[in-house]
Amino acid sequence: MNPGEFELIERFFRAPDSQPTGVAGVVLGIGDDAALLEVPPGTELVAAVDTLVEGRHFVAGSDSRSIGHRALAVNLSDFAAMGATPAWATLALTLPESDADWLAGFAAGLLGLAREFGVALVGGDTTRGPLTVSVQLLGHVPRGTALRRSGALAGDLIAVTGTLGDAGAGLALVQGNPGLAKGAAGTAPAAELIRRFEYPTPRVAFGLAARGVASAAMDLSDGLVGDLPKLARASGLAAQVEIERLPLSHALQTLVPAARARDWALAAGDDYELLVAVPQRRHPELAAAAAHLGLPLTQIGRLQPGDGVRFTLNGEQFSPTRQGYDHFR
Amino acid sequence: MNPGEFELIERFFRAPDSQPTGVAGVVLGIGDDAALLEVPPGTELVAAVDTLVEGRHFVAGSDSRSIGHRALAVNLSDFAAMGATPAWATLALTLPESDADWLAGFAAGLLGLAREFGVALVGGDTTRGPLTVSVQLLGHVPRGTALRRSGALAGDLIAVTGTLGDAGAGLALVQGNPGLAKGAAGTAPAAELIRRFEYPTPRVAFGLAARGVASAAMDLSDGLVGDLPKLARASGLAAQVEIERLPLSHALQTLVPAARARDWALAAGDDYELLVAVPQRRHPELAAAAAHLGLPLTQIGRLQPGDGVRFTLNGEQFSPTRQGYDHFR
Repeated sequence: MNPGEFELIERFFRAPDSQPTGVAGVVLGIGDDAALLEVPPGTELVAAVDTLVEGRHFVAGSDSRSIGHRALAVNLSDFAAMGATPAWATLALTLPESDADWLAGFAAGLLGLAREFGVALVGGDTTRGPLTVSVQLLGHVPRGTALRRSGALAGDLIAVTGTLGDAGAGLALVQGNPGLAKGAAGTAPAAELIRRFEYPTPRVAFGLAARGVASAAMDLSDGLVGDLPKLARASGLAAQVEIERLPLSHALQTLVPAARARDWALAAGDDYELLVAVPQRRHPELAAAAAHLGLPLTQIGRLQPGDGVRFTLNGEQFSPTRQGYDHFR
Repeated sequence: MNPGEFELIERFFRAPDSQPTGVAGVVLGIGDDAALLEVPPGTELVAAVDTLVEGRHFVAGSDSRSIGHRALAVNLSDFAAMGATPAWATLALTLPESDADWLAGFAAGLLGLAREFGVALVGGDTTRGPLTVSVQLLGHVPRGTALRRSGALAGDLIAVTGTLGDAGAGLALVQGNPGLAKGAAGTAPAAELIRRFEYPTPRVAFGLAARGVASAAMDLSDGLVGDLPKLARASGLAAQVEIERLPLSHALQTLVPAARARDWALAAGDDYELLVAVPQRRHPELAAAAAHLGLPLTQIGRLQPGDGVRFTLNGEQFSPTRQGYDHFR
């Protein structure tokens, strides 16, 4: 017999060691009609929500630990993009059945990342149905200092953290449809690319460091081709990107033909790196912050008066072949 | 061709008239990586989340306006139970396809209720998949004043707002499996019961009035049989309920045999009335507040030292035949 909903929630999400210690501001957590939280004075409340659906955001039968990790990571990435401090999360979990092993892995993935980032799980709703995971993340940012998409100015440099395209290649590997060099599966670079898809690292520390230095930011969840136009439009500017500058990992370059690597770096999404605009004179400061965190920061283009996004490859105009990820197209 | 995700969100949730006017504290709403909100000084942040899944919380093919209404109403009911003021919501909407008519109805139901309760929709995530709706509601309560499940004291009266069992009968009517008197379908009382299921009225104003008067509260989402034990356990007390006192609507009594009406009032759930504990000497004050709102408030039992919940019918011990709704049993 499967345990009931309340028992399951108790077991996995209310265990004494399931929560990070020292998360400030939890007045009342899981177990009442709503959570009560204390937002620090002088800050604005920050709220984000993201949903993962089986068969769309992860392959059916995926390791539940990865699903739990990613469900929180995608929200932490939104916080990184705002330069905000994450603090509390609620979980809306819809599950086809109450499988204790699945839940144990899921809770380990979600709560492990929560502990790492000092986030307390303060509420949730567990329902039966097709596997769908929605995490709402709450936190705070000193009043008036949040990074927005709309803050960029003409002449600002466009930069990205980390490397792009790895998660796209990782997903292809997970799907058994690699489009990769022969014999790629099972190699160390392949494992690295899969890890980049299954366990993305949200760039929260860099987002905090970029506050007050970068002029605009967003996270790359839908790929550069899908996301950069949003930042440019929000700032009322045109963007130009030199594709040969896109940062590609050694693993990606080892296993993937150059044209495919470029495609994935431009449009595959799921990398959860940050896209930032920064005034040229502040760029050294931002680069130093990234270096301090051991995180690559690469200038890939520039914002200019006008609208639209233009890509060039070695000086020639370039039309990306894949569009950014839109869940309804 | 279906419109894309961003266009849909724009059309239905960012229209100028879609939001209530005068909702305080929205620094940055839909359209960036996260929302920025200003929580009033001297308050605690309140956060609730609830999910509706097709085939479990509503019948496949239900009117999308009702689904939108209920998705927010169930969260507003949680706020009512805390005595909290709702202010902002985010929406995680998973949809099998982007159907403009469906979305128009859904948005009308959700945003109509949001306007009525002064709630601004400040963010969301739209994904493709089996129909699942998660709403996260945020708001505030003066520090230290929230109603909790755990505050009841021995000797407190147990009372409920409104009438019980109507939504259970309404759902049975919707499902075409009435268990009702012959010829019930299509009558005015039947329409009233269906309306109670499809368009529940969250008791937010009563919750605010009960703050500082009631000793404990929770909302009746899973039915009295499922919910009262949680309040009793949280307060470390036993509860005794006299079933003959349960408030039944005229519509329910007209259409439903007495034993069935009692079953639904005890265990059907979805009524979203409030269950409150109140010290006997404060009861007149609470009753006056309810009367002022035109809302019935009925004493149905009492809390005592001990544990467990005991039901009696006309002085005889009574064992409810249906258990409270548990999504995993």
